[in-house]
Amino acid sequence: MKETARQARAEGRIIGLVPTMGALHEGHLSLIAQAKRECSPLIASIFVNPKQFGPKEDFAKYPRAFETDSEKLKHAGVDAVFAPEPVEIYPNDFSTYVNVEGLSERLEGRSRPGHFRGVATVVIKLLQIVQPHRAYFGRKDAQQARLIQKMAHDLNLDSEIVICPIVRESDGLALSSRNVYLNPDERRAATVLHRALQAAKGELDRGVREVMQLKDVLQRTLSKETLATVDYAEIVDADSFEPVVRVRKACYLVLAVFFGKTRLIDNLYVEPASPGSDDLVFHL
Amino acid sequence: MKETARQARAEGRIIGLVPTMGALHEGHLSLIAQAKRECSPLIASIFVNPKQFGPKEDFAKYPRAFETDSEKLKHAGVDAVFAPEPVEIYPNDFSTYVNVEGLSERLEGRSRPGHFRGVATVVIKLLQIVQPHRAYFGRKDAQQARLIQKMAHDLNLDSEIVICPIVRESDGLALSSRNVYLNPDERRAATVLHRALQAAKGELDRGVREVMQLKDVLQRTLSKETLATVDYAEIVDADSFEPVVRVRKACYLVLAVFFGKTRLIDNLYVEPASPGSDDLVFHL
Repeated sequence: MKETARQARAEGRIIGLVPTMGALHEGHLSLIAQAKRECSPLIASIFVNPKQFGPKEDFAKYPRAFETDSEKLKHAGVDAVFAPEPVEIYPNDFSTYVNVEGLSERLEGRSRPGHFRGVATVVIKLLQIVQPHRAYFGRKDAQQARLIQKMAHDLNLDSEIVICPIVRESDGLALSSRNVYLNPDERRAATVLHRALQAAKGELDRGVREVMQLKDVLQRTLSKETLATVDYAEIVDADSFEPVVRVRKACYLVLAVFFGKTRLIDNLYVEPASPGSDDLVFHL
Repeated sequence: MKETARQARAEGRIIGLVPTMGALHEGHLSLIAQAKRECSPLIASIFVNPKQFGPKEDFAKYPRAFETDSEKLKHAGVDAVFAPEPVEIYPNDFSTYVNVEGLSERLEGRSRPGHFRGVATVVIKLLQIVQPHRAYFGRKDAQQARLIQKMAHDLNLDSEIVICPIVRESDGLALSSRNVYLNPDERRAATVLHRALQAAKGELDRGVREVMQLKDVLQRTLSKETLATVDYAEIVDADSFEPVVRVRKACYLVLAVFFGKTRLIDNLYVEPASPGSDDLVFHL
């Protein structure tokens, strides 16, 4: 992989990377499509990263579908698939970790201790191996995407981190490889994530900027869904993921909710239409 | 700096980097000389890295000599000097750190908490900015050199880490920018580092392999020097820096000793003359 990358760089080509854990859905394919327009060669990686799963999480049962994934990637025009074995990425004496302090302790990091250390570490390794000019991540995992951007900036990495829109089912559920865990009742209930964000967006459209009021709308909508157990529902600064009091600059409304044993996340990105403007633009 | 590196790589040239904290002595210049033979362009960096100094350490008074350093580097044939300001390397919102777990907690890491986190973080940044094919470090800081090698391996960095021999004064004192802190009595006493290592080497030459016996020789030599206060005197595995019981594979004899307020380190590297051989080769 490194040799392929070195040669492509020597030829002045623009290397794109879409890192995935496999179990590909239309969300992944939208990243591939954007990367394909901007890069050649385009590399996709498939690696279910053990270091980003907690001891009680779903590493063992995380969906794996290498054959159909490979077909999808080939069909989408990917030039090469990088699919290393765990022992190649983490040899027995492996001990070096990257930590984005602060950001990695909040929200997802608080609910999933060690998760972001695993994410940052595997991503820096993939970026060093594949040497992409551009690497693509989905906004569904908003905190992860921001963490990787921050790492790339802080450590002077040579890859631009591109964040792409969330892809949703027709009923609003954000695509996730974990959606397959849901039974039919949970699947119906899971639309509450999108409904809650829509309700908050409605308030924002009406001019509401107070986080107390907006969180109230989120929580009221979520609480009506009996199959939903809220982990967190917060409104945070889009750079630091620290709580805000009013929506003035770019913010995320972030949700993490259990449906049975399945934990799903979703978010709404809000930013001023122009610097200093009170009008907002939404990415839902 | 990144643009210079990109262009040199595009031209197929071999970039060398010698990272320094300035206050250059013959030890640094020996790294430069070796790098000059192997690389073009050759970059030297000068950056007194605040993150690798503890709160009670000598960051403020660490010797700085930018003008004479620049002269020395020019004279040694360096093609460019990279000398960033602290705020360029660590902007206000900087929060990403690299940690080589295990190795960074032992010996120097135990005596200087946070030191190796600072070292690993600044070195990965310098390697990303300068993009060297080869980066050169002195064996005087043996644990640091090993830590950087391990980081480069674990994180798949594209730079080869080259470790170069210790340069010594005629009386055996290893060159260090901190030697200038010593008063004349301490300067004389500081030769005990080399004398202790020589005494242990004598035992190794006589066939002694037991660490208990070798440490005894180190400690007896050090204890005779009243101005010396031992921080540690250990014999460790050259890869992991964990204690060993017998000298069988590559090892370091490592010393850290205070002379007044000045803390100096030194070491002797020992390895089998050939795999499995009982004969030893020494790097003193």
